[in-house]
Amino acid sequence: MSIRAFAAQQPKGELKAFEYDPGALGDEQVEIAVSHCGICHSDLSMLDNDWGMSAYPLVAGHEVVGTVTAVGSRVATVKPGARVGLGWYSQSCMRCRQCMSGDHNLCPTAEQTIVGRHGGFANKVRAHWAWATPLPEGIDPVKAGPLFCGGLTVFNPLVQFDVRPTHRVGIVGIGGLGHMAVQFANKWGCEVVAFSSSAGKTDEAKRLGAHHVVNSKDDAAMQKIAGTLDLILVTVNVPLNWPAYIAALAPKGRLHFVGAVLEPIAVPAMAMIMPQKSLSGSPLGSPVTTADMLAFCARHKIEPVTETFPLTKVNDALAHVRAGKARYRVVLENDLKV
Amino acid sequence: MSIRAFAAQQPKGELKAFEYDPGALGDEQVEIAVSHCGICHSDLSMLDNDWGMSAYPLVAGHEVVGTVTAVGSRVATVKPGARVGLGWYSQSCMRCRQCMSGDHNLCPTAEQTIVGRHGGFANKVRAHWAWATPLPEGIDPVKAGPLFCGGLTVFNPLVQFDVRPTHRVGIVGIGGLGHMAVQFANKWGCEVVAFSSSAGKTDEAKRLGAHHVVNSKDDAAMQKIAGTLDLILVTVNVPLNWPAYIAALAPKGRLHFVGAVLEPIAVPAMAMIMPQKSLSGSPLGSPVTTADMLAFCARHKIEPVTETFPLTKVNDALAHVRAGKARYRVVLENDLKV
Repeated sequence: MSIRAFAAQQPKGELKAFEYDPGALGDEQVEIAVSHCGICHSDLSMLDNDWGMSAYPLVAGHEVVGTVTAVGSRVATVKPGARVGLGWYSQSCMRCRQCMSGDHNLCPTAEQTIVGRHGGFANKVRAHWAWATPLPEGIDPVKAGPLFCGGLTVFNPLVQFDVRPTHRVGIVGIGGLGHMAVQFANKWGCEVVAFSSSAGKTDEAKRLGAHHVVNSKDDAAMQKIAGTLDLILVTVNVPLNWPAYIAALAPKGRLHFVGAVLEPIAVPAMAMIMPQKSLSGSPLGSPVTTADMLAFCARHKIEPVTETFPLTKVNDALAHVRAGKARYRVVLENDLKV
Repeated sequence: MSIRAFAAQQPKGELKAFEYDPGALGDEQVEIAVSHCGICHSDLSMLDNDWGMSAYPLVAGHEVVGTVTAVGSRVATVKPGARVGLGWYSQSCMRCRQCMSGDHNLCPTAEQTIVGRHGGFANKVRAHWAWATPLPEGIDPVKAGPLFCGGLTVFNPLVQFDVRPTHRVGIVGIGGLGHMAVQFANKWGCEVVAFSSSAGKTDEAKRLGAHHVVNSKDDAAMQKIAGTLDLILVTVNVPLNWPAYIAALAPKGRLHFVGAVLEPIAVPAMAMIMPQKSLSGSPLGSPVTTADMLAFCARHKIEPVTETFPLTKVNDALAHVRAGKARYRVVLENDLKV
């Protein structure tokens, strides 16, 4: 058998039809017939070899929704026919200290869906059973894909750092990740402040659940909220005025990064010491956190705002994302004939 | 009445005998007859106006032990004759969000014992009752002074960040603060790694309770402990190779600053994101944490290693500290005649 996909042959190259033989299904693997796959900024980074770890031909796509078609002999959690999602991670060792603590996303040998293996811009994809999470009732499979990478990335900090409904949470950047983060924080019960440099996003941010919107380019507005936020979640990957965001934190507050800002973050120790502030980062989330997120989304009717392209028009879809036009997340729908 | 003290008249100037009238005792104040007062590095910073907030004449000293001689009309927690200690803070508003949460040390209007008021290089000092903490049985008043600033500074992070006895804790710098931190972490039940650039401190660090000592100048030794520590407490105030210390953290680990490093700490976001690491800082501790620390010290026979000078030889004592000769903390004993 072979899997039909779209692959880049070189950095920034156009994606072309590509078939590969995945070999025998592993004992602990599931095979998923892809119905939908989101496009994430990390797909672009991998397609372009921004991180120097891409291998070509490269099949991107790590926000997969589909139906299980086959399971390995030792898989007990899902059966063929189950609707599942798959995100950035496809495999973890299941036996290291992190996996055994429930932090499979911190497993030092975790395998990433599109790093050294082929992803979801395809008719099928395979993964370890732990990372194929069933979709609960009430989750729309057409829109769910982006939850498995972008969504999980911004949901996980609320879990990891014991954020409470009485807290005030800031979200920096109202884009692919931020527009989900605003919804999560609102339904988490928090007071939500959205930071945006685009004045045009104010109404949209409020519709999504922000109680206040601060123009991050307005120094007076930034000073006005100094000392008030318990958590600020940075979803962008460009350098900003970090001291101003640290100043916006309340005592004991946390400035948390999920966006891969390349320029080092520079912070004076005293700015952290006197008000007991923290800086931190986190990647994705564990399988259990993924399941909790999906249940939370179903209960609170949270979903990404998406635009849909057919998989066979993947190059048009990528161009749309590259142009910064996605509002807010693009999903590919598998239109390959069986 | 007047208080007899030793004051600097100008930055880096010699301390000279100085008397001042403290006025009427406040309703919520206690007056303490100083028996002992530690010398902290912050005393030097204030005497030298390193932080641009010194006012002269300046009476330093904020690691005070003494006996209560008078209390204001609204003081119910201590009575004359009680043996108490006083540290960096002398007053907090008692009504803001931080004070009402038990985080009096984060009160934005907290008053510092030697900032805008006169400290403990004197026969008497005054403070709000909340900051005059009774010494429990089993605490040696001759040695207790340094617990109230240096000790509290390194004890508080163990409380704030839910450090557990199963954790591995690194202490950077085996000096005035670090030598107490090693003892605390050991008795907290943790596995303790001391980092020192002085090979000569290895035996001493082990005597204090370090299970391992790492020469921070030895790159191979630093690489060997990569990924292992849950908390690293930085007690020094000089720039170090921060990426190497971040690498030494286990997943979910925290690099915590209590030393006033002036050069901004620069850290790549990705170094925090993938292994979910944090950077943070904290100042001193609350009155309740102070009391808990003293009880912990009494129970576990923890005390600073001190050298004693008479108060009237304060200039010799300061010169000893400035020369880096203190092993590990200098305490002034009040030898002024009544």
